[in-house]
Amino acid sequence: MKDIKTNQQRLWDSLMEMGEIGGTEKGGCCRLALTDLDKQARDLFIKWCEEAGCSIRIDKMGNVFARRPGRNNDLPPVVMGSHIDTQPTGGKFDGVYGVLAGLEVIRTLNDNNIETEHPVEASIWTNEEGSRFAPAMVSSGVFAGVFDLEYGLSRADLDGKTMGEELDRIGYAGEHEVGSPVKAFFEAHIEQGPILEEEDTTIGVVTDAQGQRWYEVTLTGQEAHAGPTPMLRRKDALVGAAQIIDEVNQIGLTNQPNACATVGLLQVFPNSRNVIPGEVFFTVDFRHPNDEILSKMDQQLREISARIADELHLEMKFEEIWYSPPVPFDKGCVESVRQAAKDAGYSHRDIVSGAGHDACYISRVAPTGMVFVPCENGISHNEEENADPADLHAGCNVLFQAVLNQANG
Amino acid sequence: MKDIKTNQQRLWDSLMEMGEIGGTEKGGCCRLALTDLDKQARDLFIKWCEEAGCSIRIDKMGNVFARRPGRNNDLPPVVMGSHIDTQPTGGKFDGVYGVLAGLEVIRTLNDNNIETEHPVEASIWTNEEGSRFAPAMVSSGVFAGVFDLEYGLSRADLDGKTMGEELDRIGYAGEHEVGSPVKAFFEAHIEQGPILEEEDTTIGVVTDAQGQRWYEVTLTGQEAHAGPTPMLRRKDALVGAAQIIDEVNQIGLTNQPNACATVGLLQVFPNSRNVIPGEVFFTVDFRHPNDEILSKMDQQLREISARIADELHLEMKFEEIWYSPPVPFDKGCVESVRQAAKDAGYSHRDIVSGAGHDACYISRVAPTGMVFVPCENGISHNEEENADPADLHAGCNVLFQAVLNQANG
Repeated sequence: MKDIKTNQQRLWDSLMEMGEIGGTEKGGCCRLALTDLDKQARDLFIKWCEEAGCSIRIDKMGNVFARRPGRNNDLPPVVMGSHIDTQPTGGKFDGVYGVLAGLEVIRTLNDNNIETEHPVEASIWTNEEGSRFAPAMVSSGVFAGVFDLEYGLSRADLDGKTMGEELDRIGYAGEHEVGSPVKAFFEAHIEQGPILEEEDTTIGVVTDAQGQRWYEVTLTGQEAHAGPTPMLRRKDALVGAAQIIDEVNQIGLTNQPNACATVGLLQVFPNSRNVIPGEVFFTVDFRHPNDEILSKMDQQLREISARIADELHLEMKFEEIWYSPPVPFDKGCVESVRQAAKDAGYSHRDIVSGAGHDACYISRVAPTGMVFVPCENGISHNEEENADPADLHAGCNVLFQAVLNQANG
Repeated sequence: MKDIKTNQQRLWDSLMEMGEIGGTEKGGCCRLALTDLDKQARDLFIKWCEEAGCSIRIDKMGNVFARRPGRNNDLPPVVMGSHIDTQPTGGKFDGVYGVLAGLEVIRTLNDNNIETEHPVEASIWTNEEGSRFAPAMVSSGVFAGVFDLEYGLSRADLDGKTMGEELDRIGYAGEHEVGSPVKAFFEAHIEQGPILEEEDTTIGVVTDAQGQRWYEVTLTGQEAHAGPTPMLRRKDALVGAAQIIDEVNQIGLTNQPNACATVGLLQVFPNSRNVIPGEVFFTVDFRHPNDEILSKMDQQLREISARIADELHLEMKFEEIWYSPPVPFDKGCVESVRQAAKDAGYSHRDIVSGAGHDACYISRVAPTGMVFVPCENGISHNEEENADPADLHAGCNVLFQAVLNQANG
């Protein structure tokens, strides 16, 4: 059984065919949640699943579950999956790979006439990206009880169209209640970072997803002429921001391994070359898989930024706008992934997911694991996103064995 | 003679009447160069000067000279003046004060039937602000031979209208060649900075104008996800910019007194809170009255920014886009101002002009001095710009005595 491999060409062909729906000139994909293109992609997935003998179940958030029966269908299923919506200038692999790897696992079970104890399902989670409807991962969030159904269905796009209305419109407002018992959940995904590629490693055994703390900071000083205002009389908001940005970076560097600390967005007022900046707004993004260390980083940022603002006579508005606790994935599921990589002889390493995934929410209600494969130059959310067919195949083989392990365990 | 004072109320009334031309609701002034409002203001100035017995001379750049004859009219004149164009949201004092203080000096000479050896002139310099036609101080620049006439007249606004066309349109394209001998030039001006007000000092004896070096810097790193990209693999352009901004500030602080160092404008790409900045553009504005120290600051910036870019693996495009050497004003003119302040019993201090003024260019072809008076909160280029009538009067009295000293010397 451990020698059985999925079909690399079939997986790749399915990815390429799916990628044509919303495909862009630059080779990427634009398939926003609950658009006509999303409907086409769902229809194609369901067609393939039905051809593979699956029964289809759709819940009220439009999440799709394609079930291959087990020996005992009263047992909760082992579920695989991810999402098929993309960023506006997204790629052909982010999300879709996890969905079609799930389908490929089912096809391979069929090819080899394998019976599993538990049913096995491939799934699609609605609106993971959050590009059209905020927040991201909203439907796996409803599934996990993070959000209630009403909240999920009332999410609106910029034109005011709600997810509920758009699900109705494309025929994917299912009848099933959202949320049901799951034996184990596995999400295969491209890494969206550079580590596996740079270390020439095929499989990332995802042990945790980072906790996140997001901040918004506004420093207010005194706008003044750059010429006639002496240095010692200045209240330069940008000097304050610069010192804090350097410290944010230091906090990231001194909390290694795994800490990430980023100032990605900054705005200067009035932003004129011979005017001392009177106000600067910027964001801080902290991530760490260990909640204690994340709290320490939070404490360091608060102390350092208060000290800097005080030293430079700046007013500071400091706000934590989001806290998402770290997600330790299920030890059993993680071990299934690690063992499968080891048995197949793939190079592998433990890795922490820096981004959020549907698996992060599902892990709150079911044992969950993730499989990462390398992506070219670590690039994602970009039409240049790319991955090696052999790596995608390896990840799918690991998924296959991990699922088999759980579905018979 | 040293007891003679100008007329505070008349000076103030003239400033207020002139301020109505282009006056804004917030009490500021919007009177862009060579607009109909500029014409109205010129017409009013000339009317007042003619009423004061002056003859009017207009040159090909539209610079206006109102002459009060001396005993010997073959001698070059002592000229006072500044500009009457404003920033789009400017005030009622920047520039106009120096023009109307010149007129008030002439009126006071008349009141007291004083004859001077040299003729005395009040002047308007066209388009000092540079808001409508770049560069700033273009017409005093042509007068001083910094720019040639053709260059000056061909400066165009955003609609493509040239200074030459607009001078014709409003009837201020004079016949006189630009540039003629000047015995001495004095410009009275609000400080546009906080020093005099904060030190409760009435008169700034302007000894120098700062030299300026302006830079544009672009740092290019690698745009990447803030989550999955480890700290040690990042090329964060904003961290590099932050470190350089802090060093720019340090260079300013360590080259005291008189050094100014400012990053006023900064743009981040793609400027998204969970994306590591791939590119940052920012400007640097260095000022110092001593050219050697300004060169040292330049050298420090080049070395430090190259080191930071190197350490952070960033590409750097570093460009010096403007160099304006320091202007030491004429020792004799400066002493005339200092002595006048002393004789009148006004509190006074030597001061360096941080901003550029028409006097900076005129000083290349004539002995030149400036008189500064405080402005409220150091604010200028702003509709809130304000000044105390008593301070404006004091500055005008100093101008009067300095001019008298030069016109009879």
